Amino acid sequence: MRADPDKALVVLSGGQDSTTCLYWAIDRFGQANVDTVTFDYGQRHRIELECAARVAEFAGVHNRVLPIDTFTALGGDALTDDAIEVAQEIDAGSGLPNTFVPGRNLVFLTFAAAYAWRRAIANLVTGVAQTDYSGYPDCRENTMAALQDALSLGMEFDVTIHTPLMHLSKRETVELARDLGGLPAMALTHTCYNGERPPCGKCPACVLRARGFAEAGIEDPLPASS
Amino acid sequence: MRADPDKALVVLSGGQDSTTCLYWAIDRFGQANVDTVTFDYGQRHRIELECAARVAEFAGVHNRVLPIDTFTALGGDALTDDAIEVAQEIDAGSGLPNTFVPGRNLVFLTFAAAYAWRRAIANLVTGVAQTDYSGYPDCRENTMAALQDALSLGMEFDVTIHTPLMHLSKRETVELARDLGGLPAMALTHTCYNGERPPCGKCPACVLRARGFAEAGIEDPLPASS
Repeated sequence: MRADPDKALVVLSGGQDSTTCLYWAIDRFGQANVDTVTFDYGQRHRIELECAARVAEFAGVHNRVLPIDTFTALGGDALTDDAIEVAQEIDAGSGLPNTFVPGRNLVFLTFAAAYAWRRAIANLVTGVAQTDYSGYPDCRENTMAALQDALSLGMEFDVTIHTPLMHLSKRETVELARDLGGLPAMALTHTCYNGERPPCGKCPACVLRARGFAEAGIEDPLPASS
Repeated sequence: MRADPDKALVVLSGGQDSTTCLYWAIDRFGQANVDTVTFDYGQRHRIELECAARVAEFAGVHNRVLPIDTFTALGGDALTDDAIEVAQEIDAGSGLPNTFVPGRNLVFLTFAAAYAWRRAIANLVTGVAQTDYSGYPDCRENTMAALQDALSLGMEFDVTIHTPLMHLSKRETVELARDLGGLPAMALTHTCYNGERPPCGKCPACVLRARGFAEAGIEDPLPASS
């Protein structure tokens, strides 16, 4: 299948990183060529869905929400299972944080590719980052490279996975958002793993976000809880 | 994550190929070490779910059904969209049959890997075959190899995807099922793309199945419609 190399689909979670990626994609491909997809996978922080819709509207691009009921059925992680509390520590058994949803980014990108396939969109953009990556193995560059191969072969589809944040620190991500004119949209984003708004300020995601803005010397436009 | 190399999870659709794989897995890993997973993805041939449960019960292994509502939301293919009729011909635009669900096997195996990850099962078994493969690119060996890399890296998980039927003709698959004692279970399987029972005998899947049994000189234990 021949896809349009000028069109891009951004996996938009409604968070800081994917919003930065949206502005990166608009800068590179042009607003009219950018589409976004958001996954409703039973996440604890469901407020993300609303944030993604607002960010897309603010940026003037289309947003499609796709449901995934499978992760909830699989259960057992702190991001989709309400009975499990978000832990600060790495789980000794798996060596991974208990917010790790096995296969999450692989599934997101595979469904994004299926959506792109039907619309002949050749580029996927995702906010995964190897640095500051909270210990998620599905955010690494080699994982993304292998997945791009699997998607290209499995769908007979010349698809490219772009990861503009892959080697950026949180500080550099904040600076990139600023340089691309994406800072105002940050007021609409959501980061907190506990799904609180204003954010809890204490979960690993909140702490990481605060550090990024502090190190960049930029004020986070999203008001904090305290 | 260290997984048990003696345990296997079979992706069981309730069809002829995955049932043959189940008997292959039982032969190789032992009945007590084999688990099965079936996906309820809104398929037109939903009778498969019942067949999968019956096959698993007959073979004495556990069967877990996992829902996937995303393909129906994506729409646009003859296997999940009731408004689209199964075509006999290849679609000129994509060069693929209109029963092609983009990403289907990639998603199945990724969710199977997520299920296996939680249970420390190191082996996945799938009935995809490169020969007689109906033109599905996600059934090819190179796709499976790339996906195995993506899953291993993305879940930090030493997982192996087994494809015992990859290079077998339909005839050889029938012979393999016979050699493994899997023929009686074939009476419980489902193949027809139109979801009819007794099978329609006319869709590509029915025709392929009939040819395999005929070439092997073995009577199909599943009664035909005529």
